[in-house]
Order: sequence, then structure tokens, then C-alpha cells
Amino acid sequence: MSLTIKDVAEKAGVSVTTVSRVLNDRGYISAKTRKKVMTTMEELNYTPNEMARSFLSNKTRFIALIVPTTENPFFGELTFHIEKELAQKGYNLFICNSLNDVDNEKKYLRLLQEKRVDGVIVGSHNININEYEYFENKIVSIERELTAHIPIIQSDNYLGGKLAAQELVDKGCKRILCIRGDQHIKTPANDRATAYKDVMEENGLNYSFKEVPFQLQDQEKEALIDQIFAGEVVYDGIFAGDDIIAKMCINSAIVHGKSVPEELKVIGFDGTKIVRQLNPELSTIIQPIEKLAQKSVKILLAVLNEEKVNQVTKLSVKLLASNSTKR
Amino acid sequence: MSLTIKDVAEKAGVSVTTVSRVLNDRGYISAKTRKKVMTTMEELNYTPNEMARSFLSNKTRFIALIVPTTENPFFGELTFHIEKELAQKGYNLFICNSLNDVDNEKKYLRLLQEKRVDGVIVGSHNININEYEYFENKIVSIERELTAHIPIIQSDNYLGGKLAAQELVDKGCKRILCIRGDQHIKTPANDRATAYKDVMEENGLNYSFKEVPFQLQDQEKEALIDQIFAGEVVYDGIFAGDDIIAKMCINSAIVHGKSVPEELKVIGFDGTKIVRQLNPELSTIIQPIEKLAQKSVKILLAVLNEEKVNQVTKLSVKLLASNSTKR
Repeated sequence: MSLTIKDVAEKAGVSVTTVSRVLNDRGYISAKTRKKVMTTMEELNYTPNEMARSFLSNKTRFIALIVPTTENPFFGELTFHIEKELAQKGYNLFICNSLNDVDNEKKYLRLLQEKRVDGVIVGSHNININEYEYFENKIVSIERELTAHIPIIQSDNYLGGKLAAQELVDKGCKRILCIRGDQHIKTPANDRATAYKDVMEENGLNYSFKEVPFQLQDQEKEALIDQIFAGEVVYDGIFAGDDIIAKMCINSAIVHGKSVPEELKVIGFDGTKIVRQLNPELSTIIQPIEKLAQKSVKILLAVLNEEKVNQVTKLSVKLLASNSTKR
Repeated sequence: MSLTIKDVAEKAGVSVTTVSRVLNDRGYISAKTRKKVMTTMEELNYTPNEMARSFLSNKTRFIALIVPTTENPFFGELTFHIEKELAQKGYNLFICNSLNDVDNEKKYLRLLQEKRVDGVIVGSHNININEYEYFENKIVSIERELTAHIPIIQSDNYLGGKLAAQELVDKGCKRILCIRGDQHIKTPANDRATAYKDVMEENGLNYSFKEVPFQLQDQEKEALIDQIFAGEVVYDGIFAGDDIIAKMCINSAIVHGKSVPEELKVIGFDGTKIVRQLNPELSTIIQPIEKLAQKSVKILLAVLNEEKVNQVTKLSVKLLASNSTKR
């Protein structure tokens, strides 16, 4: 027979309501009574049924994180740091891979609707999901504009775009291409393209964009990138949307007989740990992934606690310029 | 005012117990009554409070996955596939990064103890956690021997070790080092070292091991690897514990003035998508990560359903031999 809250109440000589209040940290309880209840629970080796507790308190201490896929190193690393941060604060994390599918994303939002999670962190990239409006006080977003009121935590994408473009210009590139994502998605990442355009104009250079949406399959991305080298314009610099696309550009350039970095300089974006381990020779813009995670958790918990928070939190990025010509 | 199960019962002209039975799929309900209740719920646009339902049914449809860290590409990819598989079956996944810490792992197992999850998939690497014995009927493990009864899903590590060692021998290597993990951890990955030793002996070659535990920090791993090249024995082949260690070996060899692959051939293990994208020139043993995920989910759900399952499920691996000498 497992123990119940009633056993604890009888042994401690208090009411069931009092034990419930102690468990759920609600209502007035004197320090003395609280201590007595806690000691009794310890003596009886009583483990509260957490599901019952959640049901009573209407709080689960569960948070969901919606990302396109943890296969991608940026999101794998982000997930790790968010979970670590939440665990320290006594929360558990659901991982939800939306695969950039609107229906998937809506399905995961049902966890909120059904009160199975207290809050959601959204790092996914779908458009026009009206459901977000109903849960504005339970959501924060990373690098994505969901509604006018949902707090957003982001890297300084304009700075990142500026650093990347300027680095290519400084290295002597004249015909620089910018590979961007789907323009219809409202994400601060669009600021990178704006910064690139500004730098080109300041330096009297032509700008040129190529769209390679994040949600495409790898083969589709590679086909779009191959077009760059099959085309008439011969580029000597590429500012890629992320490090994987940067690597695809380098591979494609080599297949097309170009020497890298002599004839073509490429700069990526993200600077995840794994990419820096595996491709230390790749120049990139390093996003502060651990800080993005910490801030997201901090702001979400403040939101759930009905505290006032900033609508936009912007974190700085830095350039990792590789001087290696070896590999 | 939100609707309750009572509103549904009144509108459908049945008892609250009947509605509860339909919701929880328990007890005898005629097809006609079931249909009436379902239709009424639709008409009223009634969303059951899932937390209340879980509380009543004692099932949460939540599963937890314990891995060392999703930062590592093997676990990032595994997590993605497990979540995708579970989502299709109507389950949600908690992600638990144990960081190879025993206390963390125990903390996550409390989710089972407190009945907040129905089952757990363990892909972590800690030793001597007695708690596993209490939950043998709710756990499966990936690549880790937890207890004598917990089902294990694993790659054919012996085959992997054999393919890797034979590839190095076939390429002409004579002094081959095998980098293995912590020998005290009971994992089928130890079979790789056995296979390597067998291949060496078959070919009349000396074998040699170096221990580089998975749970070390990168800098510590790099320091251990640097010792290999600072030592007296000059190796011409390395069978590395995973692809990241393989890459560290290549980097260290180059720093020590060796040309790769001319003077040193290295072969890794895992063959994750991201590593193959970023380092297509790296020879490796490809683990069937998606299949490991699918089998783990299938076997866990069978276990939870009290079906009989195999104690060991072994999946084949394959060699990806790079012939590139360019990079």
C-alpha cells in the first residue's frame, strides 16, 4: 500500500488541506507547521504523486521547446543549453521537432492548450500560425517574430551581417554573393541581408542575393548552390546563410574547379561547437548560443511569473576570421 | 467559462462515468453510446483537460530520453529520430541531458518514480545506478547494459570494429592504435576493441590501446591525443572512438608535422549526417541511427504494453571508406 497525503496529515496531526498547502506552496502556513509536515514526510518516506500535485496546482513545471530539428547543430546545441538551464530551475523540457511543418507546430502548441506544459520556447520557422495569439503570456521566441507581443530573444543579426560582409571586402573580394533564407519568414535573420547590402553600397560594390530556404532538403540546397557556379557571374566571395551552406558552397566550388580560399572566400554563420571542431578553417559569425538559451529561459520564467520583460533582447555576435589557407 | 465533462454528459444524456470511460477508453461502452459522446464533444467543441485525463488514466503518454548531451551530433540525430517516431505514435518526448553525471541521471529517473512519464529510453553512460532495477518494465536502453533484464538496442559493434581495423590493414597500415572509451562502462561499444584485437592478431600485427573517455572535456581529450604523437611509437593508423576524436587526431597529427592520409590513416565511428556533410573526406563506420531510434521506440512501446521482446536487438553497420587524399 502506498502512502497518501492523508497518512501524512494524520501522522503530523494536521489537516489534509494543510499538507496540500505545504506541497503546493500556497496559502498561509506557519514556519513551524511547514517544518512539522516536511519532517513527517521525511519520516514516512512519502513521495508525493507529482501528477496529482500538478493536477491540483494547475502547474506542471514542464516547458516545451519547438525547433525545426535537433539534427541541425545550432538547434542541437541550443536544446542542450536550454534543457540544462531549465533543469537547474526545476523544470523538465519537451523537445518538439517541427520539421518546419505548420501542422506539426500547431500540434505541439496543443500541449499548451491542454495545459500539459506551463510555457513554450519557439525557435521554429513557420508562418501565419494564429494560435500564437492565444498564448502570448506563455511563450517566448528565439530569432522569430511571432506576434507583436511575444518577447523575442535574438542575436544582433545586423552586426553579424556587417562583420561578415566587411571581412570579405577587407580580404579583397569584389563580387560578393549573399545567400539568404526564405524572405517571407519574419525573422531578425533578415537583418543580415540588409547589413550586407549597406556594406556593399558603402564600398561602391554591387550586391546580389540568392535564396536558399532553410527548410529545403540537403539535395535541394546543393542543387541551388551548384547553380551559383554554373552561372555567368563569377563570384569571389560568398556570405552564406549558415555554416552548413558555407561548407556546401566550398564543396561545390572545388567540384567546379575553383581553389578555395584563393579564388573564392566563403564566410558562414552560427559558429556551433561541432562546426568549429570539425571545420576550424571555416570563417564564420559566432552566435552566442549558450547566452541565447539562458536569456530565453530567464525571460520565459519571468513571463510566466507575470513580470514585465523587454519585448526584444539582442545579444552580440563575433567574427571568427580564419587565416588558414591550408585546407 | 470552460466546459467540463459534466456539460458533455448532460448534453449527450449519459452519465459522467460514461463520458469518462469514452475519454479513457476503459470499461464497456456500446459503439452507439461512444459515437453519441464523441459527436457531442465535437458539437460543444470540448477539449478534454489532458492533465485531468492523465491523472484519471494513470498514463501520461510522455516518454523521457536520457542522453549525455544533444550537443554531440550522434545524440542530436538520435533525439531527432526518436522524437519524430514517438510523435507519430501520439507520445511526447522529454529530453534529459545527463552530462554523464550520476546524480543528474538519478534525478531524471525520478520522472518515472513520480509517474510523470510512462517510460524511459536510456542512451547515457553512467555506472552503478541501482534505480534501474525498480523500473525494468518501463525502460529500454541504447548501447548500454543497464541490468540483466532491460532490453538493449545496439549497433553491431564487433562488425564495426572489424570493418575499421581491416580497412586500415588493407590500406597498408602496420602500427595501428585503437582509441577506446572508459573500459569500466558496460557497453557493447567494448566489442569494437575486441574486434580490432582479433583483426590485428589474424594479421600478425601488434595491437595497442589508448583510453580517451567520452565524458572528458574536449581540451582533456585533445591533451590525451597529443600524447600519442609526442610518444616514441610512430603510428601509421588510428581507429578512433568516434568521428570527433578522429578529427582531433587528424588535427594533432598535422600540428606534429605528419601528412594525412599519406603518413597516417584515421578512421572514425558514428557517421552522423552533420559529420558526413562537414567532413566528407573522413573514413568512418556508419551507425544506423534512424533505425536505432525506430527500434528503440518500437521495443519500448511493446514493453509498456507488456508484450514479450528480445533482450538484445543488434543492427548492422557499414564502412564509409574515403579515397580522397585531397583534404
